[in-house]
Amino acid sequence: MRELNVGLIGYKFMGKAHSNAYRSLRLFFDGDVTVVMKAICGRDRAAVKSAAEQFGWESYETDWRKLVARPDIDIVDVSTPGNVHKEMVIAAAKAGKHVVCEKPLANTVKDAKDMVRAVKQARVKNMVAYNYRRVPAIAFAKQLIDKGKLGTIYHWRAVYAQDWITDPNVPLVWRLRKSVAGSGSLGDIGSHIIDLAHYLIGEIAEVAATMETFIKERPLLDATTGGLSAKSRRGVRKGKVTVDDAVLFLTRSDNGALGSFEATRFATGRKNHNTFEINGSKGSIAFDLEDMNRLSYCDATEDRDVQGFRSILVTNATHPYLAAYWPPGHIIGWEHTFINEVHDLVQAIVRNKRVRPDFEDALVCQKVMDAVERATKEKRWVKV
Amino acid sequence: MRELNVGLIGYKFMGKAHSNAYRSLRLFFDGDVTVVMKAICGRDRAAVKSAAEQFGWESYETDWRKLVARPDIDIVDVSTPGNVHKEMVIAAAKAGKHVVCEKPLANTVKDAKDMVRAVKQARVKNMVAYNYRRVPAIAFAKQLIDKGKLGTIYHWRAVYAQDWITDPNVPLVWRLRKSVAGSGSLGDIGSHIIDLAHYLIGEIAEVAATMETFIKERPLLDATTGGLSAKSRRGVRKGKVTVDDAVLFLTRSDNGALGSFEATRFATGRKNHNTFEINGSKGSIAFDLEDMNRLSYCDATEDRDVQGFRSILVTNATHPYLAAYWPPGHIIGWEHTFINEVHDLVQAIVRNKRVRPDFEDALVCQKVMDAVERATKEKRWVKV
Amino acid sequence: MRELNVGLIGYKFMGKAHSNAYRSLRLFFDGDVTVVMKAICGRDRAAVKSAAEQFGWESYETDWRKLVARPDIDIVDVSTPGNVHKEMVIAAAKAGKHVVCEKPLANTVKDAKDMVRAVKQARVKNMVAYNYRRVPAIAFAKQLIDKGKLGTIYHWRAVYAQDWITDPNVPLVWRLRKSVAGSGSLGDIGSHIIDLAHYLIGEIAEVAATMETFIKERPLLDATTGGLSAKSRRGVRKGKVTVDDAVLFLTRSDNGALGSFEATRFATGRKNHNTFEINGSKGSIAFDLEDMNRLSYCDATEDRDVQGFRSILVTNATHPYLAAYWPPGHIIGWEHTFINEVHDLVQAIVRNKRVRPDFEDALVCQKVMDAVERATKEKRWVKV
Amino acid sequence: MRELNVGLIGYKFMGKAHSNAYRSLRLFFDGDVTVVMKAICGRDRAAVKSAAEQFGWESYETDWRKLVARPDIDIVDVSTPGNVHKEMVIAAAKAGKHVVCEKPLANTVKDAKDMVRAVKQARVKNMVAYNYRRVPAIAFAKQLIDKGKLGTIYHWRAVYAQDWITDPNVPLVWRLRKSVAGSGSLGDIGSHIIDLAHYLIGEIAEVAATMETFIKERPLLDATTGGLSAKSRRGVRKGKVTVDDAVLFLTRSDNGALGSFEATRFATGRKNHNTFEINGSKGSIAFDLEDMNRLSYCDATEDRDVQGFRSILVTNATHPYLAAYWPPGHIIGWEHTFINEVHDLVQAIVRNKRVRPDFEDALVCQKVMDAVERATKEKRWVKV
Repeated sequence: MRELNVGLIGYKFMGKAHSNAYRSLRLFFDGDVTVVMKAICGRDRAAVKSAAEQFGWESYETDWRKLVARPDIDIVDVSTPGNVHKEMVIAAAKAGKHVVCEKPLANTVKDAKDMVRAVKQARVKNMVAYNYRRVPAIAFAKQLIDKGKLGTIYHWRAVYAQDWITDPNVPLVWRLRKSVAGSGSLGDIGSHIIDLAHYLIGEIAEVAATMETFIKERPLLDATTGGLSAKSRRGVRKGKVTVDDAVLFLTRSDNGALGSFEATRFATGRKNHNTFEINGSKGSIAFDLEDMNRLSYCDATEDRDVQGFRSILVTNATHPYLAAYWPPGHIIGWEHTFINEVHDLVQAIVRNKRVRPDFEDALVCQKVMDAVERATKEKRWVKV
Repeated sequence: MRELNVGLIGYKFMGKAHSNAYRSLRLFFDGDVTVVMKAICGRDRAAVKSAAEQFGWESYETDWRKLVARPDIDIVDVSTPGNVHKEMVIAAAKAGKHVVCEKPLANTVKDAKDMVRAVKQARVKNMVAYNYRRVPAIAFAKQLIDKGKLGTIYHWRAVYAQDWITDPNVPLVWRLRKSVAGSGSLGDIGSHIIDLAHYLIGEIAEVAATMETFIKERPLLDATTGGLSAKSRRGVRKGKVTVDDAVLFLTRSDNGALGSFEATRFATGRKNHNTFEINGSKGSIAFDLEDMNRLSYCDATEDRDVQGFRSILVTNATHPYLAAYWPPGHIIGWEHTFINEVHDLVQAIVRNKRVRPDFEDALVCQKVMDAVERATKEKRWVKV
Repeated sequence: MRELNVGLIGYKFMGKAHSNAYRSLRLFFDGDVTVVMKAICGRDRAAVKSAAEQFGWESYETDWRKLVARPDIDIVDVSTPGNVHKEMVIAAAKAGKHVVCEKPLANTVKDAKDMVRAVKQARVKNMVAYNYRRVPAIAFAKQLIDKGKLGTIYHWRAVYAQDWITDPNVPLVWRLRKSVAGSGSLGDIGSHIIDLAHYLIGEIAEVAATMETFIKERPLLDATTGGLSAKSRRGVRKGKVTVDDAVLFLTRSDNGALGSFEATRFATGRKNHNTFEINGSKGSIAFDLEDMNRLSYCDATEDRDVQGFRSILVTNATHPYLAAYWPPGHIIGWEHTFINEVHDLVQAIVRNKRVRPDFEDALVCQKVMDAVERATKEKRWVKV
Repeated sequence: MRELNVGLIGYKFMGKAHSNAYRSLRLFFDGDVTVVMKAICGRDRAAVKSAAEQFGWESYETDWRKLVARPDIDIVDVSTPGNVHKEMVIAAAKAGKHVVCEKPLANTVKDAKDMVRAVKQARVKNMVAYNYRRVPAIAFAKQLIDKGKLGTIYHWRAVYAQDWITDPNVPLVWRLRKSVAGSGSLGDIGSHIIDLAHYLIGEIAEVAATMETFIKERPLLDATTGGLSAKSRRGVRKGKVTVDDAVLFLTRSDNGALGSFEATRFATGRKNHNTFEINGSKGSIAFDLEDMNRLSYCDATEDRDVQGFRSILVTNATHPYLAAYWPPGHIIGWEHTFINEVHDLVQAIVRNKRVRPDFEDALVCQKVMDAVERATKEKRWVKV
């Protein structure tokens, strides 16, 4: 049994999700390789120590440079906010580690390019955690498309809608600050649907766009406690929201397909409504992350009178990734996308193959995000 | 019982739908006014005679000018392709008739303005058959919005998707010729969702857009028979499709709401998928014409733990228009929108009130369509 | 054009639905036969006169015996409560009229047998208005089954759920009195799903059952006004509910299929939730009347990985009855089942063919209802 | 941190699911107690050794009696077929271990009673793995019911439908043999919906029922290899299916509620369609395991015009169990029910409280199953 040692930077939402993936890998994917949860890293000693115990890491670090330098680490997993990705990733690559990085890869195209260069020079495996490629139903959609089941693609339409900040009292967390997060809905959830479009129907050539910040100011967090400051509670201290609450863009691809994208945190009632539909000359596909074990598929080559969108429960052992889990009809959840992702990563490492989406894929995604921001400012269509 | 005499120009798809509405009005809406189906008009004598008998018209005409001139006609209903609307409508207005016109009102903004002027000068009631305002579920959505149930509107997203011309062998019917239809998806179905947006959330201020014709040429129809010519059948004679197969546009409104619109005839598997969702600060609404007796509504002012989109079967006697029909749960169909429309028209006439959407509303819609075409050509955001 | 003259007894809910069907037949079904709305009949002169005008009947009668005796009537339509069906139907048959009767045919098996005998002796066409056989999606389901698409049938499960009497203040209307209605949920809605089971999967051999009346007493209606009496309003006068609020039964068929049936007026939130699912060795079908233009169909002979229930919008011209109506995707409503029914009836008359379900079919249905009542009383399985 | 040592008997489907639960507990439920995966037990040394490694158990045993006797084990988990539950459970209880047992508790009422007696005498915690009580949406439904949100309960209807043995070539696995499994659909999936009914609306008083075995004989498995024997592959050797493929039953409860239950493995197209609906005087609830993060809820105390079944995504931190997992909208899967279950068990142990459903609950369930079998044989209603 080949072992790969992982070091993880970050221990909150994404840190927990990634930890769970490493911890569960071996139970589900009974292969020739497994991961060892060597070390987790965070700046707050007490918090990271507690996380290490809870999530099952062998050790912890409070300085990410130390983690990256440890000789017993094979893979560095960067699950931090976007503004620190570059430094960490480049250091890890230079140290010869394989690198997994949370999405979006960087806050600028330039940073992303630097990171691509670093992993290429270091010849390390690299992956960006656009985990929705590992939803079995989406991977199955990809198989259908690759087999030509949709024919020529005419339309892509994706809406990634959440509502967690419709309340104006939600404070100015890091995801609402451009200096940390890079952008708002665009980078956080919009980047996912860009990546899915690239995965499923090919690259975007040009875009028209608009972005909006509906709530301009929000209560400040106390810098030390991380909670609402006393003044903020009394409504005195507010800070400016520097990212987009919502972004919409239209796209054209070189192959003639039209795209519609919307990413918003202001779609009241929608929690994690990551949906897309693809229409082609021979069929169509639709997906909704909130019911992620299903794929809707219409086969337009059948007798017209029995055509319709069929709701496929993608839980057969013959569907992507599903042989690792339960019998048909026993659904998996959101966290399993990360387990599948780690499985693909370690397989790529031991077999020395490219794993997708890698940093180059993420760079293409970054360029689209950049084009969306320019198109918004310039109020015109811009090339990617 | 007050009687109003109607003359209808057009006897095909829309002619049949309007005839059915006039014929059924009295049975459902037991009021103080009814319509008399005086005359139907079409150029093909045999066909219009047959339609008159089948649909229940007292007489028929083959020259629309004669119909418009008949003193026994109170209301002229123009259910013809767009390129002849203007002439007919202006003549009818000049003859002092109330006018109903199929949508879109005209093929150009200029024509629409002329038509508005004509009905204003003639002081006749005028209505454009954007019939989806008369879907009970949509009228009920309007009531909820007017009561403030959605709060501040953030998002409008509408997709009107059909697939009836994905087959390249569908011939070059009038709806695919710009000289007759004015535009393709934009005018035929896109105009419906523009009108609904205006009705439900207010006017559009600016747009970015793109349009596409996926299949550039199609078999020609024989000019005399109206069917495929022998040559077309053998694949020899094709003509150019001069309208859009699909149109997508983004909008911004003066009130800050963002809009996404898509109208396509190339969404394989979608038949009459006229759908929209509105997200506001207090709630959201969603609708799908293929299940048109339902409205999805999320009330975000409730306890968060029981929030969700509720599927309301809009069939109570207390819902709009429904007292005219059946007990709760006994659904009505597409054709009933026209019955409701005629009811509102005749009530407006006898009570001398404005009926919406009238020609002025339709002109606003036309301006948006015009802006969409300019935005597409100029590849930039344009003001309406 | 052959004409058939109709006389209708009953002018309320069913009277209106049947009137609409006769009135609309010619507009939709452009065939070689039409119906003439000769006379409508009801005991209240003012009310029936008004209904005649509103619905478009040429004349009216207040004595059904007169209507039945009129030589200008070809078809008698009995749309009255069950306790008077027998007398009217037998008189009509003796007068040589074709007969349509609302369901259930009778309040007892004995009466139903007498009625079958009468129409057989008179050799008149006879039909019972189990109108849901004329839902296009259900007629299409029948086609699929007849083609063997479901293979051997294992399961039938039907739930017809409404909630219109969950409020204890709903008064003791005729449908809640055994002397008039014969039974409650069983005859009113349960009979529909029995008829559908017979239509789609064959006859029921034996049943086990239970029935319940959840609310035992209700406010009395004033015998003269038909409204709540003054005393009832004050909560003083209540009468006993003498029918079932809900009935559930299990069935076995000679062909080995198992059935589950439930009919209730106490399913809070369900308005006209007439649903069934059929599972066979080769496929399954599911239907819901509240979204009646759709049929769910799973084809189990396909590749397992793309299997799923497809949602077919049954609105193509090639689907049953739909050529009479609108283009694909333009849905029809509940009332259209009656138009389709009348179409089939008049075609059967002019072509001298049997029309189904006729009185014999209804008698089989009646026998099942009778078995359900016996099985409930005797607390055991009983043969039909 | 209090530690509890677990020993698990069984390493296949349920063994994997339980292992995953023990392994993941600490990562999600960051409390004051954790479990140590001490030993797993199975008869096949190589297989159980491999499972121990894959699932993360510290050691393994091939003799369950040894496992039960180990002093370092606090909790014995019996995840074996039903015919060996009794012996193992009683031995574990006598050894003073807390006991978790897979459902159904036993193959007979008598055995179940013996097991109840054993755990009572031993005063050990005991739980039966009716894991669906730990679906957050179902636990939330329970909260709504306990708060009186549904009012008086009128109806329960549950269908647990699968299709994994519709293919006649599925061999005679242990679940199809009465001597091992006790019963077929009844015990395997029917018992789940009985337990849910007890949990949500109270105990069942009497039943009428029917059972069927659609495919009477199936290919035999080779006793040594566990696969299809060479003869079976050639279609020569078949054995008798001795359990039910499907079971349907009606119930009445002392509180007047009516119930309909169906459990079948012959519902083509249904994979793990565990569904129920409850109708009460004030509201209704519906659930489907294939979309298990949702609960449909209709509140009938609201304004009638906005009533409808709302689809609640049960993923808030304030919903049952969800604080342990991800942000709203990030759904969990089937396996999480076991993690929740283990959490409740260890909390009960350390706090010395009763955990439900325990053996007494399971005995009540067993009595209903027994009544269903008697009712089927005697073809009449029988008391539980």
